[in-house]
Amino acid sequence: MLSADAHIINTPSSSLQEKFNDVRQRTLAICETLSDADANAQSMPDASPAKWHLAHTSWFFEEFILVPHLGDSIRFDPNFAFLFNSYYEAIGTRQARDKRGLITRPSLDEVRKYRAYVDGKINTLFKVGAVKSELIALGIAHEEQHQELIHTDILHLFSHSPLKPALQRPSPEINSQSPSPLTWKEFEPELTHIGMSAEPNDAFSFDCECPEHKVYIAPFALANRVVTNAEWIKFMDAGGYESPQYWLSDGFATLNSQQWKSPLYWEKHDGQWWTMTLEGFQPIDLNAPVCHVSFYEADAYASWAGARLPTEAEWEYAAKQSSTQKTSLAPTLKPKPQTGDDLLGLYSDVWEWTGSAFLPYPGFQINDGAIGEYNGKFMSGQMVLRGGSCVTSPNHSRASYRNFFHPDKRWQFSGLRLAKDIV
Amino acid sequence: MLSADAHIINTPSSSLQEKFNDVRQRTLAICETLSDADANAQSMPDASPAKWHLAHTSWFFEEFILVPHLGDSIRFDPNFAFLFNSYYEAIGTRQARDKRGLITRPSLDEVRKYRAYVDGKINTLFKVGAVKSELIALGIAHEEQHQELIHTDILHLFSHSPLKPALQRPSPEINSQSPSPLTWKEFEPELTHIGMSAEPNDAFSFDCECPEHKVYIAPFALANRVVTNAEWIKFMDAGGYESPQYWLSDGFATLNSQQWKSPLYWEKHDGQWWTMTLEGFQPIDLNAPVCHVSFYEADAYASWAGARLPTEAEWEYAAKQSSTQKTSLAPTLKPKPQTGDDLLGLYSDVWEWTGSAFLPYPGFQINDGAIGEYNGKFMSGQMVLRGGSCVTSPNHSRASYRNFFHPDKRWQFSGLRLAKDIV
Amino acid sequence: MLSADAHIINTPSSSLQEKFNDVRQRTLAICETLSDADANAQSMPDASPAKWHLAHTSWFFEEFILVPHLGDSIRFDPNFAFLFNSYYEAIGTRQARDKRGLITRPSLDEVRKYRAYVDGKINTLFKVGAVKSELIALGIAHEEQHQELIHTDILHLFSHSPLKPALQRPSPEINSQSPSPLTWKEFEPELTHIGMSAEPNDAFSFDCECPEHKVYIAPFALANRVVTNAEWIKFMDAGGYESPQYWLSDGFATLNSQQWKSPLYWEKHDGQWWTMTLEGFQPIDLNAPVCHVSFYEADAYASWAGARLPTEAEWEYAAKQSSTQKTSLAPTLKPKPQTGDDLLGLYSDVWEWTGSAFLPYPGFQINDGAIGEYNGKFMSGQMVLRGGSCVTSPNHSRASYRNFFHPDKRWQFSGLRLAKDIV
Amino acid sequence: MLSADAHIINTPSSSLQEKFNDVRQRTLAICETLSDADANAQSMPDASPAKWHLAHTSWFFEEFILVPHLGDSIRFDPNFAFLFNSYYEAIGTRQARDKRGLITRPSLDEVRKYRAYVDGKINTLFKVGAVKSELIALGIAHEEQHQELIHTDILHLFSHSPLKPALQRPSPEINSQSPSPLTWKEFEPELTHIGMSAEPNDAFSFDCECPEHKVYIAPFALANRVVTNAEWIKFMDAGGYESPQYWLSDGFATLNSQQWKSPLYWEKHDGQWWTMTLEGFQPIDLNAPVCHVSFYEADAYASWAGARLPTEAEWEYAAKQSSTQKTSLAPTLKPKPQTGDDLLGLYSDVWEWTGSAFLPYPGFQINDGAIGEYNGKFMSGQMVLRGGSCVTSPNHSRASYRNFFHPDKRWQFSGLRLAKDIV
Repeated sequence: MLSADAHIINTPSSSLQEKFNDVRQRTLAICETLSDADANAQSMPDASPAKWHLAHTSWFFEEFILVPHLGDSIRFDPNFAFLFNSYYEAIGTRQARDKRGLITRPSLDEVRKYRAYVDGKINTLFKVGAVKSELIALGIAHEEQHQELIHTDILHLFSHSPLKPALQRPSPEINSQSPSPLTWKEFEPELTHIGMSAEPNDAFSFDCECPEHKVYIAPFALANRVVTNAEWIKFMDAGGYESPQYWLSDGFATLNSQQWKSPLYWEKHDGQWWTMTLEGFQPIDLNAPVCHVSFYEADAYASWAGARLPTEAEWEYAAKQSSTQKTSLAPTLKPKPQTGDDLLGLYSDVWEWTGSAFLPYPGFQINDGAIGEYNGKFMSGQMVLRGGSCVTSPNHSRASYRNFFHPDKRWQFSGLRLAKDIV
Repeated sequence: MLSADAHIINTPSSSLQEKFNDVRQRTLAICETLSDADANAQSMPDASPAKWHLAHTSWFFEEFILVPHLGDSIRFDPNFAFLFNSYYEAIGTRQARDKRGLITRPSLDEVRKYRAYVDGKINTLFKVGAVKSELIALGIAHEEQHQELIHTDILHLFSHSPLKPALQRPSPEINSQSPSPLTWKEFEPELTHIGMSAEPNDAFSFDCECPEHKVYIAPFALANRVVTNAEWIKFMDAGGYESPQYWLSDGFATLNSQQWKSPLYWEKHDGQWWTMTLEGFQPIDLNAPVCHVSFYEADAYASWAGARLPTEAEWEYAAKQSSTQKTSLAPTLKPKPQTGDDLLGLYSDVWEWTGSAFLPYPGFQINDGAIGEYNGKFMSGQMVLRGGSCVTSPNHSRASYRNFFHPDKRWQFSGLRLAKDIV
Repeated sequence: MLSADAHIINTPSSSLQEKFNDVRQRTLAICETLSDADANAQSMPDASPAKWHLAHTSWFFEEFILVPHLGDSIRFDPNFAFLFNSYYEAIGTRQARDKRGLITRPSLDEVRKYRAYVDGKINTLFKVGAVKSELIALGIAHEEQHQELIHTDILHLFSHSPLKPALQRPSPEINSQSPSPLTWKEFEPELTHIGMSAEPNDAFSFDCECPEHKVYIAPFALANRVVTNAEWIKFMDAGGYESPQYWLSDGFATLNSQQWKSPLYWEKHDGQWWTMTLEGFQPIDLNAPVCHVSFYEADAYASWAGARLPTEAEWEYAAKQSSTQKTSLAPTLKPKPQTGDDLLGLYSDVWEWTGSAFLPYPGFQINDGAIGEYNGKFMSGQMVLRGGSCVTSPNHSRASYRNFFHPDKRWQFSGLRLAKDIV
Repeated sequence: MLSADAHIINTPSSSLQEKFNDVRQRTLAICETLSDADANAQSMPDASPAKWHLAHTSWFFEEFILVPHLGDSIRFDPNFAFLFNSYYEAIGTRQARDKRGLITRPSLDEVRKYRAYVDGKINTLFKVGAVKSELIALGIAHEEQHQELIHTDILHLFSHSPLKPALQRPSPEINSQSPSPLTWKEFEPELTHIGMSAEPNDAFSFDCECPEHKVYIAPFALANRVVTNAEWIKFMDAGGYESPQYWLSDGFATLNSQQWKSPLYWEKHDGQWWTMTLEGFQPIDLNAPVCHVSFYEADAYASWAGARLPTEAEWEYAAKQSSTQKTSLAPTLKPKPQTGDDLLGLYSDVWEWTGSAFLPYPGFQINDGAIGEYNGKFMSGQMVLRGGSCVTSPNHSRASYRNFFHPDKRWQFSGLRLAKDIV
């Protein structure tokens, strides 16, 4: 989900090239432990095979940079445009999204060759100074998004195997810290701006973050940290999943049809809750943020707790004032207990569901052409999440970032932070 | 979809009683031509049998006024609470919503007796001055909503009969007038208020219209009238229903799965478009507003036309300044061509889809108890419509009124008015 | 499900006319207590509204006798051919089978007028000696089948109403008799004939009962009576519904997806099993035959009991030797305990599932034309039932009669009689 | 689909061991060109991944021979019993059948190790003379069935890839021969036997082929060869797929819901029909047998051709008299034109749909225990196919063999041979 509004004019090309190569390398590293079969399986229509992510992100650079510059004959394999494009309906028929796991060829090895081929050609373009910075920046951001999706999709796949495989070995055990007590940070009413400014600067943004625009924010309070597993279990023990009065009508209907009784991946064994993680099947850490809950569940929890979810404007307004900054550290692969002062963990553990529908900002423009098919077409039926998670790529989060999913989705690393009206 | 925040303190009870009896009488009048079988059939889960509407609106007065006041033994029939309540999950098990057409008993005649019984008891309460004005007002507004639904649900039912029956005889044919040319009314940026004030006054409102709150509105322009059938046919002829680039992703998927090629009820015979109306099967009036389009279709049309749908705040802000007022005239049962000056037909022909998701206003409170289950629980996945339609009951529309449906629904009398950014 | 092979050559027309009028009268009598809404509702795609049955059986005489004889202008209403034909694809588009409950017009009263009109015209044809006996006989048999279906479909409809209405008042209570103890009647191996002879005689038969043909029957034993409710409860208590080893694979999958735990309509209240009957909701009579079980359940029971279902050839061979004859008494509307000697209740209580798939007999011929679309097209995926039930019309059963339904269907009055190999 | 009635008493163990090792080797050879991803993907719930077939057939020998003999600790990996058993519900919970493609581990390499381990242990048992011949024979027949399924399932998988991969390189092109003209072989009426005798002999059979039993066969004629692609195209050109009168009711409904217009895998390009084969995407050979048609299609064709499908008794009776014997040659992977005399290609090109439902023979006994869950539980809703196909393993066909599939299945190598009554 990208944007042709990428604003990177002032980025020197040399550092952009480094960034390009770093990101491309990192995607391979994430998939290092995967077999050809691991990388090929698709566990549900919402998820894609890792191999597809590896190829699709390469196809993006081929399609939007190599081909316009060097012509159609530069393609590594003419079939790949069909196999590995995604929702770009303007570019021709696509392979049915839910059948990606049936494309067993090319193999993982051949896809790695495809990546190397594309990387070589792009580096050559850098050398001759022929790259469009905006498109490279867009491709990098695009690939960072898919890096996060590789994590979420592999976790979903591995959760279906009775062997409960891990993407990486468990980290050495450290005593889990108690999270900071829940406190409320209060905000005065304000006519302010949210969204990313379109002025030339060195910050990248997606189209849906623009334009910067005025909003009036009523007084509100925001929790210092996200909701924990211990708190979530209290909600469950209080009959949260059986009590329609806390739930949106669509949410309770979904709960019933999907038989939800806990967050995704949770299983109770001998009185102890366990969950699936990228380090394998593990007991729940009561101190850690609750994760893999849908918007419906987050909203029901907030209702039960006598609070509500923040709007995305509130969240962004608060985040911009916070000393908690986006991190450039490597993802931790699991949400960690949040301790310390200020608004904690805004970008590091779980995406935070907001109460805002994903809709265009006033003045939002859809760009022409295939890249312009981007975020605008998803502006219906989805809810905004803000912040970032333990599998978000370094440098891929910011206060204005708008993530979005349908309200019943749970396979992302999604949790919640409470808000309240001040009256 | 009602509200316990009904503000009618200053309404003298006597006129409220008249209003009550008028509304109750009008519901019967709407159903006058229906047979027992007509009134019993359910054409889809979204629709309810007319008999159910007749009984459910009576049950509302029985459940929330008679029983609290006079005790459980006052009920006309103890089974009716089960048969005819709706989404009040707090009040006990409900008859499955999609099986309402299988409750063939009580008969339509007996339901009419039930209505007379309830009306008698309520009038007695009026006589002794024991009514709670707020609840009566709420019950009246509730019944007015169901009056509109009886129209939409009967139209849907009759459209399934090869005989294409009419609810009422066609009105004598009048030459259809050309609509006013499309013009744009421009609005300056403003920090203003929308929503219904909670101050005691004689205006009724539903909970979701409250509280009145500040919003910042960027400069925009609004069309003087809604989109017509002639304009819609241009969109169809331009390949509107085959061009993914105009459509939201969920919208185009719905179009494909539902095989949409035109608005609901349209059929082409010998090169002429016909449609189902409450006066039977008729040729399309090119001058009249397009009707029975979903949000997805409305949004695609706006995108094709180089415009967008207004937000609900823009709509309300414009409507409050308009000389076009809500009408107290009887519904016309079909949308009519809009002619004249100013913003035309804001309340009289078709509900107007907005680009706003149905979400709580800042400071929105859910009321306790069963009536409090009201609108809050639907605040997910639905889009707001503003104004009123040709089957909206007299006095049942106002600038702050928020109607809402899922974006794929088409059986309401729904159309669209275009808006534009001013940049 | 009829046959153009109807063999009634020797039936004097005068008695055929009486029979015609009796049958037509009886259909009305069955529906006497139904309201317009009762007669219009359709509870599932397999069932049809009573009004549809009333009209469809009339349409049959109109379409295949009146129109060929008197021309198209004789039709009562030209729309009815579309509304009330059934699976005769050769005669033009049909109203979607699962939407019959949405045809609220014509009303029940008008359908009664339609019946009277058709009856009058047919009687006039009788008077002038212009009827084709075979077609009248076919129409009578057709109507008798629909008489049974009216019972089964109304029972299914009424079971959905929380009021549990009855088609007729409960008969005065008589002490239920104990059934005869289970005994086995043994049969020697034989090369014999089954099926209805095509020789001219006065017996009517459907096409699928023909031709008479040779079959070899291995030695077997057949139970003297059908399985009772008391016996079925033993199966349930023994974990019959939870034990895959007794079930066909498709059967156990159906059990799981449909959540079967007992026969259709059974509900347990305070430790007592109740069931829905045409006389309303009643406690189970332990002595009576089990009813409303699918083929899958019948087969699982037989497997649990160390027995099997008889083949249709075995059943017919045994029935032809039995002194228990088809009854001409009025249907009893509920299965009754079977007492006495010989093979009991072959035609009077429940249809008996056999282990035979419904397939063409050797030499079976499909007739040309619309009537010829008859039974042949259903010869796939269905199982044969033999005998007759408590709602089968008088004179509408015989040893060669082949009833058939898909193996998961339960809304017919279907039970089972056990058989065994003799080795 | 196996049987504990395997009758191999007289087979010397040494040759059985050779047979065992040959079959085990052949399964590996079939999969030689498959990658880890190819072997892991599952294209529909009816199909299984090749890896699963490779492991499941090994698990069979482990579970029913190694473990009973050597104890539970002999298992290669205790998880495999869960991962790789199939429909043996008596042996504990199974991995959901439609999720087999999500078990990405163990890898294909590890499954090959598993096979080698099991083979080693079984060969050791042979050495010490501790094998039960019946179980080995059953395991061999079981594995031969899965060899056929590997072919059908891989073809189905590869048909989904836009690259249309081949399992093996196309054979050098040979001019396709014209098939023999269609002639009819006539058979006199007979009281005969079908089924496999239970007498000790050296023939293997599955439980459902037993016992041998008497049947009466009426006079009939059988076509000398199966229906060809050229003939099938005539049926298509004659509107076969649009004409309900040729179709069973369930068949035409399936055709409509599945949008059938030709056999499975057929695609028309530039006026030429192509199809997917195990040698890749190829033009239709008009001389070759039609393949990948369902029972419904086969039955409709026969009806259009004024003929019918043979019963399984007719087929077996004719085959036993034919000089055309089962072949021990390697599968040809594609059906070939049938030329010569007598009944051609009874075992070598396509399985032949019969008009017989798959039901128990008189006197059929289900064996106790897990192996006894075998064929009996599938005796509902399926139709019998007779003969063998171009992917049937050598020696795995015989006149009494009963193959069976649901009437809508098309991914097997299934075609048809016509029959006729003689009257």
